[in-house]
Amino acid sequence: MTLVSKEYSHTYTLTAGECNPQAMMPVTLFAARAIEVATFHANSLGAGYDRLISDGLAWVLSRLSIEMYRSPEVNSQYTLHTWIEGFNRHFSERNFEMTDSRGEVIGHARSVWMAINIKERRAADLAMLESLRDSVSEKVCPMDRMTRFVPVGAAEGVEESRYRFRYCDCDFNRHVNTMRYMELLLNCRDMDFYDSHRVGRFDIAFMHEAKFGEEATVRLADAGDGSFNAEISGGDVCYSRSRLRFVDLKYRKK
Amino acid sequence: MTLVSKEYSHTYTLTAGECNPQAMMPVTLFAARAIEVATFHANSLGAGYDRLISDGLAWVLSRLSIEMYRSPEVNSQYTLHTWIEGFNRHFSERNFEMTDSRGEVIGHARSVWMAINIKERRAADLAMLESLRDSVSEKVCPMDRMTRFVPVGAAEGVEESRYRFRYCDCDFNRHVNTMRYMELLLNCRDMDFYDSHRVGRFDIAFMHEAKFGEEATVRLADAGDGSFNAEISGGDVCYSRSRLRFVDLKYRKK
Repeated sequence: MTLVSKEYSHTYTLTAGECNPQAMMPVTLFAARAIEVATFHANSLGAGYDRLISDGLAWVLSRLSIEMYRSPEVNSQYTLHTWIEGFNRHFSERNFEMTDSRGEVIGHARSVWMAINIKERRAADLAMLESLRDSVSEKVCPMDRMTRFVPVGAAEGVEESRYRFRYCDCDFNRHVNTMRYMELLLNCRDMDFYDSHRVGRFDIAFMHEAKFGEEATVRLADAGDGSFNAEISGGDVCYSRSRLRFVDLKYRKK
Repeated sequence: MTLVSKEYSHTYTLTAGECNPQAMMPVTLFAARAIEVATFHANSLGAGYDRLISDGLAWVLSRLSIEMYRSPEVNSQYTLHTWIEGFNRHFSERNFEMTDSRGEVIGHARSVWMAINIKERRAADLAMLESLRDSVSEKVCPMDRMTRFVPVGAAEGVEESRYRFRYCDCDFNRHVNTMRYMELLLNCRDMDFYDSHRVGRFDIAFMHEAKFGEEATVRLADAGDGSFNAEISGGDVCYSRSRLRFVDLKYRKK
């Protein structure tokens, strides 16, 4: 055993069962794996689930940006590396790098985490994790930071659909989970679209918790250049704002 | 390295991010992990994705039965063990045992797999995997085999809902994935129900592939004793038949 490490890596195999219909890693799986290695690293730093729950707190994801340059191949190994870029009393910034089985970098992600008080559902002070400052790494994440989101209201040319959150959309924190928000946006496009496009970048900011039974309005506005601004709202509140950028893909059916 | 093994095990950590709102492992995660260790074991036996795709074939799940006696605790390790119980030219029967971090058995699963010809979407002959017979294990799975399903038609007292399959519901085989069928059935109950009940057993048989854009009718019929017969159909075809058995749970909110 060495001292706690500023970087943490975990190697996975991309199974056929996890691939999307274009035989690629879905961007939602990148998100799930990033959340998983973040959990493993936080646990190893003594800043994980156990530490926070002892104060009645839980980590929640506040912002996530993913860039995928290429997908690992089906049945091949890939590695997710994570490190802390910044930390203060309100937020922890954690980055990710994905490498393929040959060690080539094929994706990056940036994430911002906050803690909530589970009972009061309010942002919590992270001062008790001050020692995490020593775990901040100098490793550079070359992807751009998330820029300001464009609000998307009901307007001419804005696509709109509705979805009521069900039981399986909700997670440990008893609110709608990250992957479900992402899927609601990805589901605005059909199979033909994904046979000719893949997600190049996905930015999402979580603003208000959505809960079981609430009805969401999903809005998508074409911003040109293969980019879309998106919003998921319910009643008077905006649950999340997003930006999706698609790039060309030539999928050949087997 | 030893000879290929008749049993295969993989150890996981149950993260908070994977738990359901009752802080337990969702039955859908058991299914996903079972499919994953089945993939790893098949790969190690030379009967995995690579071997089948060389003949234009892919493994598909035909039947799955899961019993969960208890959930691993959040942030703890659990292990999934798998072995082949039977094999013929049409099907491979593969079983699973879940143990907690102390080695106690907390769940079992039975699965039946077949191969399809990807282009023709027809059942394929598994004769070329005849050597798998040598990998059949004597290990016993104590859970009952799946019994015959009760068809569920539109009738008085039968709950009915509809769902149109979207992009994120579809997988590598370009049809709706196992977990989505299971979630459609679990979503027939609300948060209050799951604060007082958990899944004890889940049986599902896949009968016809559901594809992108198709509209499904979900039907659930109370069979008494906490059990339900369920069916997901579309147009003239029945996609899947299921049986769900719930057991009492006392979830204390944190």
